[in-house]
Amino acid sequence: MDDFRWLTPDQLQAWKKLVAVVELLPGVLDSQLQRDAELTHFEYFTLAMLSEAPEHTLRMTALAAITNATLPRLSHVATRLEKRGYIQRSPCPDDRRATNATLTPQGWDKVVATAPGHVTTVVDNVIDPLNARDIADLDRIMTKLLVPLDPENKFGSRDRP
Amino acid sequence: MDDFRWLTPDQLQAWKKLVAVVELLPGVLDSQLQRDAELTHFEYFTLAMLSEAPEHTLRMTALAAITNATLPRLSHVATRLEKRGYIQRSPCPDDRRATNATLTPQGWDKVVATAPGHVTTVVDNVIDPLNARDIADLDRIMTKLLVPLDPENKFGSRDRP
Repeated sequence: MDDFRWLTPDQLQAWKKLVAVVELLPGVLDSQLQRDAELTHFEYFTLAMLSEAPEHTLRMTALAAITNATLPRLSHVATRLEKRGYIQRSPCPDDRRATNATLTPQGWDKVVATAPGHVTTVVDNVIDPLNARDIADLDRIMTKLLVPLDPENKFGSRDRP
Repeated sequence: MDDFRWLTPDQLQAWKKLVAVVELLPGVLDSQLQRDAELTHFEYFTLAMLSEAPEHTLRMTALAAITNATLPRLSHVATRLEKRGYIQRSPCPDDRRATNATLTPQGWDKVVATAPGHVTTVVDNVIDPLNARDIADLDRIMTKLLVPLDPENKFGSRDRP
């Protein structure tokens, strides 16, 4: 164990702060969205990604990638969103074995109504505390962390707009 | 709505990458710990924080702060850890209304046995991809984000070692 590589004090301090942000941020996002829109952040993010897609439609595999989710997790959430009338699933015209998810008009209205409150939460908690240099540094560091976290880039975390 | 402050393209890109890390990192930490030690990351972190405390003991309120958890969430996890023999709760000698949590000898052995595999996961996924400047920048940026996320510093996120 003498050769084992423990963290240096600087690394440990940065790591513990990252852990704190990873623990606290989802609760802040979920609380506002649950209170104001009865959506989890993951549900909102799923609807928002469809709202940015051509014809408001993505293959379920592509939607899983863009939301950093496994397909089973996304399918579970898609069932809930479909029951609430926000999305609709249908066979992909180009490949009948694949499934498309499409934002419905009610889903679009939900995103439009929900976005301002959510964006305000993001601005208050993440954007406003940071200056332009911090934003650039955050982008650079998160890009580096996504290499091991998403090694085959299957979640599409490194080529998203 | 014309005056509403949406994110700039640079801000949006950094935000989406932070969201991806916040979504993906807990799964990587939990998977290794569940597989190798049948612990969640939150359970491991709770045991590890007690292992660093004087006499391996902290008040439950202090332990909640240091683990970024609400007291109800920590109490729920403490019950599970107590059933497995890793911690013991007892009235605080200085204040009988308060409760202490103490790491048991079995809990200490569990931390010692589990730490190397966990630290290797942290090194592989978070430390190795970053250089010394990245670590310093990550620390600075996370410190800034913890101001709104933990405004009263009740989670102790900004004064931890």
